[in-house]
Amino acid sequence: MGKYKRSERTILLSKKLLENPNRVYPLREFALELDVAKSSMSEDIKLISKLFKEKEFGDVETTHGAAGGVKFTPYSSENKKDEVLNNLKEILSNSDRVLPGGYLYYSDVIYHPRICDDLGLLFATKYKDEKIDYVLTIETKGIPIAMAAAKYLDAEVVVARRENRVTEGPVMTINYISGSNRRIQTMSLNKRAMQPAKNVLVLDDFMKAGGTAKGLSELVKEYNCNLKGIGVIIDTEKPRKKLVDEYYYLLKLKNINELKREIVIGR
Amino acid sequence: MGKYKRSERTILLSKKLLENPNRVYPLREFALELDVAKSSMSEDIKLISKLFKEKEFGDVETTHGAAGGVKFTPYSSENKKDEVLNNLKEILSNSDRVLPGGYLYYSDVIYHPRICDDLGLLFATKYKDEKIDYVLTIETKGIPIAMAAAKYLDAEVVVARRENRVTEGPVMTINYISGSNRRIQTMSLNKRAMQPAKNVLVLDDFMKAGGTAKGLSELVKEYNCNLKGIGVIIDTEKPRKKLVDEYYYLLKLKNINELKREIVIGR
Repeated sequence: MGKYKRSERTILLSKKLLENPNRVYPLREFALELDVAKSSMSEDIKLISKLFKEKEFGDVETTHGAAGGVKFTPYSSENKKDEVLNNLKEILSNSDRVLPGGYLYYSDVIYHPRICDDLGLLFATKYKDEKIDYVLTIETKGIPIAMAAAKYLDAEVVVARRENRVTEGPVMTINYISGSNRRIQTMSLNKRAMQPAKNVLVLDDFMKAGGTAKGLSELVKEYNCNLKGIGVIIDTEKPRKKLVDEYYYLLKLKNINELKREIVIGR
Repeated sequence: MGKYKRSERTILLSKKLLENPNRVYPLREFALELDVAKSSMSEDIKLISKLFKEKEFGDVETTHGAAGGVKFTPYSSENKKDEVLNNLKEILSNSDRVLPGGYLYYSDVIYHPRICDDLGLLFATKYKDEKIDYVLTIETKGIPIAMAAAKYLDAEVVVARRENRVTEGPVMTINYISGSNRRIQTMSLNKRAMQPAKNVLVLDDFMKAGGTAKGLSELVKEYNCNLKGIGVIIDTEKPRKKLVDEYYYLLKLKNINELKREIVIGR
């Protein structure tokens, strides 16, 4: 008889899996930590796996053998996705969010840890089979969503900067054309930030014409990595023609009327 | 008899608590969701509470009565803290991290979701009794640690910018003197980013002379909020005299020798 009861072991196992998504956790380590035979643990994992599947939290898979392990791949159910996005749509449609110049105030939302986590899971669900190594974004407002998605994907976050800083060491710098105002922009990334031949997901908070997303895609090429996808939280209906062909968005800003203080957001 | 067995209920309850730190979760909601009597649930919560205490994951408290609820306050044990900081110290002491000019390369570490989460829990542990409403930081590299700590503290993240952007609406701008090079710097924050009389924790990745931390503290005053603490991941030994009196740091950069490619980090 081990140190913990089944009801305790399943809590400890669940916690470990929930906190380490997409990582193979060696069964041997678990068994040692919980002071329990591997066979009892298999039963525990079966129970968790069944429950997580039933509740649509994600897949719990076990690989057997000496190097056997257990891995939790979280995903969002369609219901959960609807709930998250409809809630966000409602929050963002509040007329108080119209800023002078017809911009949308949404910083508070993307910096809200719980909302950000939920959105991160949506991107992780979309790209869960792409074996993402890096989530690449650009300062500033892309960082929270990149962190949240990367946690679920077990990836690292890489952040391009708009200005080169002396404290960063050797950087790769590229110029790109901002799609909105056609101005030449610069982005820099530490030379050592990405190893070649890795899988990269580009994420950002907002897309207008897609110039930044295109710049980030070019950066992926410069590092000889594979672009696996581009995702943004909010896309704009106009301009219809974007500088990138394929991308995934969660919400679409259809219209802002500054005079009427009206915001129309769709999905 | 409810829909779920005890071993299943305790997993579902644990998950909810772990994912919603520092929030009071109404028992009634739980009971409804799990289709179980409140009395059975009390037993479940007792089991979780005992286990979380024993494993030093945090406190699970229950408040009784009609508006009764359960709240999980996570904290890091001293052992876990030592493990996290010693590991980080080792990673950061690698001589490959010396950058031209005698700077330290550490972006990959603060953007690593799991490391960042662990560090966030250390700040949340330090300030867990301060009822923090906002974690305030400045772009760019303070954002990940602010997000991680805020999640554990159930706070919102507020990010000051070094430049004012047209897309941000009305902002409060202050000038401050950078402690390192004595230059006048500017930081801006959306006017509506913080409500008055709230409790604010200032977090940043790095402190040299403390000019930025001082600037952020002044911003807290401008919003008529209460400064509850200043925390940084890495502090530098020099200059010894900082522009802020009291602050909490996790690691101290004692010396970098560019020629010898030597990094000395302490705690």
